Amino acid sequence: MDRQPDDEAGLYDLVEQVRRIRALTAGGVFHTDLGPVTERLRRAADELEAASATPEERQAETWANRDYIRNCPVTGRGNPLSPPIEFDLLADGTMRGEVTLGLEYQGPPACVHGGVVALLFDAVLGRANFHAGHTGMTVYLDVDYRSPTPILEPLVITGRQVHRDGRKVWSEGALWTGDRLCATAEGFFVLPGDLLRENRRRLTGG
Amino acid sequence: MDRQPDDEAGLYDLVEQVRRIRALTAGGVFHTDLGPVTERLRRAADELEAASATPEERQAETWANRDYIRNCPVTGRGNPLSPPIEFDLLADGTMRGEVTLGLEYQGPPACVHGGVVALLFDAVLGRANFHAGHTGMTVYLDVDYRSPTPILEPLVITGRQVHRDGRKVWSEGALWTGDRLCATAEGFFVLPGDLLRENRRRLTGG
Repeated sequence: MDRQPDDEAGLYDLVEQVRRIRALTAGGVFHTDLGPVTERLRRAADELEAASATPEERQAETWANRDYIRNCPVTGRGNPLSPPIEFDLLADGTMRGEVTLGLEYQGPPACVHGGVVALLFDAVLGRANFHAGHTGMTVYLDVDYRSPTPILEPLVITGRQVHRDGRKVWSEGALWTGDRLCATAEGFFVLPGDLLRENRRRLTGG
Repeated sequence: MDRQPDDEAGLYDLVEQVRRIRALTAGGVFHTDLGPVTERLRRAADELEAASATPEERQAETWANRDYIRNCPVTGRGNPLSPPIEFDLLADGTMRGEVTLGLEYQGPPACVHGGVVALLFDAVLGRANFHAGHTGMTVYLDVDYRSPTPILEPLVITGRQVHRDGRKVWSEGALWTGDRLCATAEGFFVLPGDLLRENRRRLTGG
């Protein structure tokens, strides 16, 4: 039986199991022999590789329905890299997300990796731009780290578009734990030009 | 039988199977019913959760041996988030890594997510600092995106410490595909202070 392209639930359930395993491996210590469970994972990977569409077909799939969110490395329920974060759009146009990050996102002791903080900011600023009607490619992203961002504690991240001039967009973000400011970011974005339109056309055959 | 703390190979093999599955899910289309394979993954996750050490024990494990690299979200063979990248140290102190990123790292069509580019830079600058003898916490990270960074094509990323003044360190990086410059970065780092020393002491019981 083929998986239907609109069977999101099946894919999400599979990815959620990967996410559960992912959460255990950084600093992983298991009171069991990993051999048998690794063999079962190897057979699952063999089976999925044999049944998978080609990279080209999947690449087209990621853009055919402009279904960006589900594949995004930060927000995508279909992407095992993502925590995932779900964002809410506030009345003033601010995107606001809540997330608690596990050991796999650790950089310094008990802290979120600085690069992961930047990754989250690029995503939240991108989402804020999208909802403001002006999705853009990042031209620069400047992140200021003001205090350590903890793992295993609730974080709140916000992003907001602050200025637009034609194809140019400026956005700002902040990351908090409780009432402590952990980091801020400023991004400058330009609306997609010819290269991206060409990529999308090539990928979707449109 | 307990997994021995030094059985890295067992954990790496397990994580590699997760990575194979991870590589198929963004834009995932499978010519099979995902239900049975998802059930097998669910049982594997159940088993690993039941056998796992506590988060506190694992947190201590990530620092007990100062074994940062294997758990890092960018370089860690024991971390399913990482591609992973392996870096080489060049004679002039430059860290140089090569990597090809799959669909799960995609942002704009056919391009690496801008936040992932920032994540890679923070990691390579951190590694360059470590090898220069002055690991630091990121204070700021500024990334300039100069041309689209492609997925599914070989990338070269470099980082180098350019200046140090006491506990303060400045580093620079660049990301290329072939002879095209995709992005550059500048980072400012400060050597860990009391909070980090306290975190490490608490986590390792030292």
